[in-house]
Amino acid sequence: MYTLIKNALVVPMTRENYYLEKADIGINGTHIDFVGKTPENVRADRVIDASSMIAMPSLVNAHTHVAMELERNYKDDLPTLEAWLGEIFPIEAKLTEEDILWANRLGMVELIQSGCTLFNDMYYQVHCGAIAANEAGLRAVIGFTGVGDVPDLKRTLDREGPLMRREVEKSDGRIKVACAPHAVYTCTPALYQYAHDWAMEQGALLHTHMAETTTEVATCKERYGASPFRHLEKLGYFKNTRHILAHCVHLTDDEMDTLKDLDATVCTNPTSNAKLASGMAPIGKMLKKGVKVALGTDGSSSNNNINMIEEMHVASLISSSLTKDIASLTPYQILKMATTDGAKALGFDQIGTLQAGNEADLILINTRKPHLTPLNNPFSALVFAVQASDVDTVFCQGRMLMEHRKILTLDPQPIMDEVNTHWRALLGRSHA
Amino acid sequence: MYTLIKNALVVPMTRENYYLEKADIGINGTHIDFVGKTPENVRADRVIDASSMIAMPSLVNAHTHVAMELERNYKDDLPTLEAWLGEIFPIEAKLTEEDILWANRLGMVELIQSGCTLFNDMYYQVHCGAIAANEAGLRAVIGFTGVGDVPDLKRTLDREGPLMRREVEKSDGRIKVACAPHAVYTCTPALYQYAHDWAMEQGALLHTHMAETTTEVATCKERYGASPFRHLEKLGYFKNTRHILAHCVHLTDDEMDTLKDLDATVCTNPTSNAKLASGMAPIGKMLKKGVKVALGTDGSSSNNNINMIEEMHVASLISSSLTKDIASLTPYQILKMATTDGAKALGFDQIGTLQAGNEADLILINTRKPHLTPLNNPFSALVFAVQASDVDTVFCQGRMLMEHRKILTLDPQPIMDEVNTHWRALLGRSHA
Repeated sequence: MYTLIKNALVVPMTRENYYLEKADIGINGTHIDFVGKTPENVRADRVIDASSMIAMPSLVNAHTHVAMELERNYKDDLPTLEAWLGEIFPIEAKLTEEDILWANRLGMVELIQSGCTLFNDMYYQVHCGAIAANEAGLRAVIGFTGVGDVPDLKRTLDREGPLMRREVEKSDGRIKVACAPHAVYTCTPALYQYAHDWAMEQGALLHTHMAETTTEVATCKERYGASPFRHLEKLGYFKNTRHILAHCVHLTDDEMDTLKDLDATVCTNPTSNAKLASGMAPIGKMLKKGVKVALGTDGSSSNNNINMIEEMHVASLISSSLTKDIASLTPYQILKMATTDGAKALGFDQIGTLQAGNEADLILINTRKPHLTPLNNPFSALVFAVQASDVDTVFCQGRMLMEHRKILTLDPQPIMDEVNTHWRALLGRSHA
Repeated sequence: MYTLIKNALVVPMTRENYYLEKADIGINGTHIDFVGKTPENVRADRVIDASSMIAMPSLVNAHTHVAMELERNYKDDLPTLEAWLGEIFPIEAKLTEEDILWANRLGMVELIQSGCTLFNDMYYQVHCGAIAANEAGLRAVIGFTGVGDVPDLKRTLDREGPLMRREVEKSDGRIKVACAPHAVYTCTPALYQYAHDWAMEQGALLHTHMAETTTEVATCKERYGASPFRHLEKLGYFKNTRHILAHCVHLTDDEMDTLKDLDATVCTNPTSNAKLASGMAPIGKMLKKGVKVALGTDGSSSNNNINMIEEMHVASLISSSLTKDIASLTPYQILKMATTDGAKALGFDQIGTLQAGNEADLILINTRKPHLTPLNNPFSALVFAVQASDVDTVFCQGRMLMEHRKILTLDPQPIMDEVNTHWRALLGRSHA
C-alpha cells in the first residue's frame, strides 16, 4: 500500500521553525518514503489532497493513566487534593477488568481524535491498555505498576506478564512494557530497587511520579532524609536504566544539574498540576540546562481529558504566566516536547520527525477553519489556535487510523454506551 | 414561532451548581416561555431533541477587538511586547474599511461557533463591527474608541456616530454603543473627561484598558503621580457612569475596595495576559471582596482566537496555578462570569440566565462525545472538558443562529476566502 499526501504545509520537526509549503509525503507500507517533491517513479494506491492541511508528526502523550477516563469530571470540585482522593480511591478499589478495558477503549478513541498515536501509561490491570491499543492500532508503553512492597509488584508481574507478552507479540513493535513504581510515598525503597533490577534486565523503561507537590517532597525528606530525587538516586534507581519522571514540579537547580546527565526525561503535565494547584515544572529553565523534557496529560480525572493539542496550549500559557517571560517556552519547543522528544524518551527513535526512512506516524490538521484564518505562523497556530477537532486524519506505522474525523479501527458509539453502563454500575456498587 | 427544546440537561445559572435533568425549554418568539416541564397547552412549531445536550445561557465576551482576527498567529513569537507592537502598529495603520469589515464577519462566525452571542468591542471603524453583528444576528456593545486627545475622539464620534446609529436602529435592541478611551498611556486626561461626559449624557457604557502591565502602572505614576485607577478616579471618570475595566492585572487591595462600590466590572482576559506574560488579575480575591467580574478573550492577535469556551478553561487553570489554591475560582464562578455577570455588566439584564420572561440567548452543547464520557459533574465538564466544537446549536433573541454546527445567518467559506485575500493584500501594501 502506497499513500501519497499532496500539497500539505509540512512541519517535519527536523529543525527549528522549519516548514515546507505545498509539499508531498509518500508513505510506503509502514514507512515514510519521501518528504518534499514527489519523485517521478511513484505510483500511489491512495492519494490524499492535503491542500489546506498541516502535516506533522503525531503527538506523544508521555504520562497518562488512560483508564481514569471513568473518573472524568467526578467530584473534582472538592477544595483539597486529599478530599478528592478520598472519593477516588474507594471507586478505584471496586474496578473490574471489564470496567478498565472499556475505559481504555474510550481512551484510544480520544487519543486518536486529538492526534496522538503513542502514549505512556501507568495503571492497574495494565494488559487492558495493551489490548485496547492493539485494537486501535496505536503505539504504547505500558508500565507494570508498583504500589506497596516487593511482593505486590511481583504479583503484578506474575499475573500481568504473560497477558502483556501476548499483546506485545501481536503489536509489530508498537507496544513495549515498562515498570512503573508509583511514587516515593506509595512504594518502599525495596520495591524501587526491585523495579530497577527488573527493568535493567529487560532493557525496559522505568516510569514514576516525582516531586509533584511540596507535601511529597517534605514527607520524603522526613521519612528518608532526602528529597524524592536524591532518595531514588541513593537507591541506585537511575543506574544504567532509562527513565520517565512525571511532574518534577519541585526539583532544585542542583537536582536538575544531576538529572541532565542521566538517561531520563521529565514529563511535564501542566493541566493536571494547574488543576491541583501544584504549579508547573520550570521547563524553560530545564531545557536551558539540557534536561530532556516531554509532555503528558496525566489522567482524565485531573485534566479532564487526554487531549495533547490542548496540553500544548496550556503548557505555553502557564509557563509564561508563572515565569513572566514571553519567551520562556517557544511554540517550537513545545511541539518538540510533544512529538520528537516524547517519542525518543519512550524508546521510539523511528518516529517523531517526518523524514524518509522513519515509520509513518503523522497527522493532518485541517486549517480551513474560521479560527485558523488567516493561518500566518504555523507554529503559533499549532500551539495557540488549533483545536483537537481540527485533527482530520491520523496515521500510525503507516496505517490510517482516522480519515476525515472517522475512526477506522474502533466504533466510538458503542464504546461510549459501554463506558456509561459500566460507570453507572460501578457507582451503584461503591455506594451500596 | 414557538420552539420547544426537549429533554436537555439545563444549567439555568439561576443558583449555584443547580441544574435540571431531562428538562424542556419553550421559546416563544424572542423570549423564554418556560424552563422545566412542558405545560399542556404548548403547541410548538419546531421541536428539538436535546437528549444528549446541555442547555445553558450563551456566552458573553466582555472584552475583545474582533477585527484583530487578521493578525492571528502573526509575529507573535517575538520575545517582547514592544517588539511585537512594532510589527502590529504599521499593519494596523494600513487597514481599510473593507479589511475591517471582513475581519469582523469572520469574527462573528468564530463567536457563534464557540457559543458566544454578546461581545464588547473596541477598535477602529467601529460601525463595521455593528454591520457584521447585524448580519450575524448577534448582540454587541461597540465602543467609539478614543486614542490621543479630545479632537481625535470628537472626529471618531462625528464620523462613526451616524453610521452606528443606523445599525443600532436595525438591531431590535441587540446593539448598543459605548465610549472606549483606549488606555492611560494612549489618551490624554482631557480625552477621558470628554468620554466620561459624553457617556453620562448618552447613558452609555465606558470601556477602557486598565492596569494591564507593571510598566503601564509605573509609567502612569511617573507621569500623573498616581496609578491608572487612581488617576482616572481623580479625573472623575467613574462618577455616575457604568464601566468595563479590561485586564486589571495589577490593582492594589485598596483599589479593589474602592472599585467594588463603583458601577464597574473588571473584565479578566487570562489567555492574553498569560501569552504576554503579564500574569492574571486576582479574580478569586476580587470576587471575595465583592468586585464584579466578567470574562473576555481580548483580540485574536494575543490569544490567538476569540473562543470563550477555551477562555473559561484557561481562566481556571491559570488562577489555580498562580494562587496555588484549587478553590480559588470554582467552575460555577467561572461560568457565571462568562454568562450572567458579563451580560449584566454590558447592560443586558434580560439575558444571562435561563428563566421564563428572559430573552432567549442560549446554547445547546452536545455531550455525546468521547471526551465528555462519562459526563459526571456538568459544571466541571463545561469548564474542563467541553470544546468549542461541542457547541451544537445557538440562539440569540429567540432566533436560531446555528443548528447542528451549521451557521444559518452567514456563510463561513467565502468569508474565509475574503479574509485571506484582504490579509495578503494588506501584507503586500505594508511591505511595499
